[in-house]
Amino acid sequence: MKLYGYWRSSASYRVRIALNLKRAAYEQVPVHLVKQEQFSPDYLALSPSGVVPALVTDDGRVLLQSLAICEWLDETVSGPNLLPDNEYDRARTRAIAQLIACDVHPLGNTRVQAYLRAEMGQDDARMTAWLHKWITTGLAAVEAMIEGSTRFAVGNRASLADICIVPQLYNARRFSVDLTPYPKLLAIDEEAARQQPFIDAAPERQPDAPPP
Amino acid sequence: MKLYGYWRSSASYRVRIALNLKRAAYEQVPVHLVKQEQFSPDYLALSPSGVVPALVTDDGRVLLQSLAICEWLDETVSGPNLLPDNEYDRARTRAIAQLIACDVHPLGNTRVQAYLRAEMGQDDARMTAWLHKWITTGLAAVEAMIEGSTRFAVGNRASLADICIVPQLYNARRFSVDLTPYPKLLAIDEEAARQQPFIDAAPERQPDAPPP
Repeated sequence: MKLYGYWRSSASYRVRIALNLKRAAYEQVPVHLVKQEQFSPDYLALSPSGVVPALVTDDGRVLLQSLAICEWLDETVSGPNLLPDNEYDRARTRAIAQLIACDVHPLGNTRVQAYLRAEMGQDDARMTAWLHKWITTGLAAVEAMIEGSTRFAVGNRASLADICIVPQLYNARRFSVDLTPYPKLLAIDEEAARQQPFIDAAPERQPDAPPP
Repeated sequence: MKLYGYWRSSASYRVRIALNLKRAAYEQVPVHLVKQEQFSPDYLALSPSGVVPALVTDDGRVLLQSLAICEWLDETVSGPNLLPDNEYDRARTRAIAQLIACDVHPLGNTRVQAYLRAEMGQDDARMTAWLHKWITTGLAAVEAMIEGSTRFAVGNRASLADICIVPQLYNARRFSVDLTPYPKLLAIDEEAARQQPFIDAAPERQPDAPPP
């Protein structure tokens, strides 16, 4: 499989974690978002709006949207399940994943930030306030959605929820969000930091990351 | 089941379509977004960030996030499947649904529009440009993701993709987006307009819609 993505894209980071949890072999094809490579005709032929990631399967099919790709991996690749066994826990897992993927991440991604600066004239201070507003609202909601004290967001095994939480916390730190109000999320992040699939998926470890 | 939602919320509209396709009985509890009822302590106890919809099951469990709710309905309620049978078509269905739910809808919802106006001083013209930018980018991508000519987005049966497309087109019309560049989406919308589950889910038909 070939994963088209970008080292610092949080949606690409999610799919890397999922592929690693499944112990799937994949090749990475970097799409440099800052250099606008996502708008090259070749990439647009895979992803019509230029968003990353895209996963091209061994039989040449193109899969888009990080959570849809993770669900496909869960349905077609052996290895640990990315969703819990019972329906209610699955719904809670997907709800946490989607709260991050729909209500938090899209408001802070590269193209939206670029638009707010270029077309709406927003300066650094207002951009920071905007990013903090949606990240803190979302993280507080996710913190409240985690029931009991388990090693991961839903149960003791990494799931689609954690696949979204860890990259979102990485993003939050990039934008200097204070994470102390979210002790459950920090505990999940610490647990993930001890597990190889998460370690290997970290942005700085990717082939297209700039040298340290 | 009780569906907490708002007549014009596109995420609530999705869940109404799904419930209707499944022929599930449900009671609606309106949460008036413009009157800020989503921030009442009672509603925040259900949905910690105040987003709609929330579905409360017959055994009192709270489900959040429209697509997670639809997947739960598909797994637990009999009736027509909301996802196709094979894995690749399921991935494509979820990708279309998520492109709308992640890359289009969150950028135009009520709370984001309110923030852009109040905190970033954006006027009507700039708000229109912002909404059109994300809606047209997203709809063009979805149009390109629809393969062949089937009655619905993926195959001839309504799926999670159509559940997202129809409310997004409703939103696009609200904001006077020209839909002529998207003939496949318009054909799906026409097909849906002939089917009772979609007709009954329309915003204007809901108990909390203002009188015509």
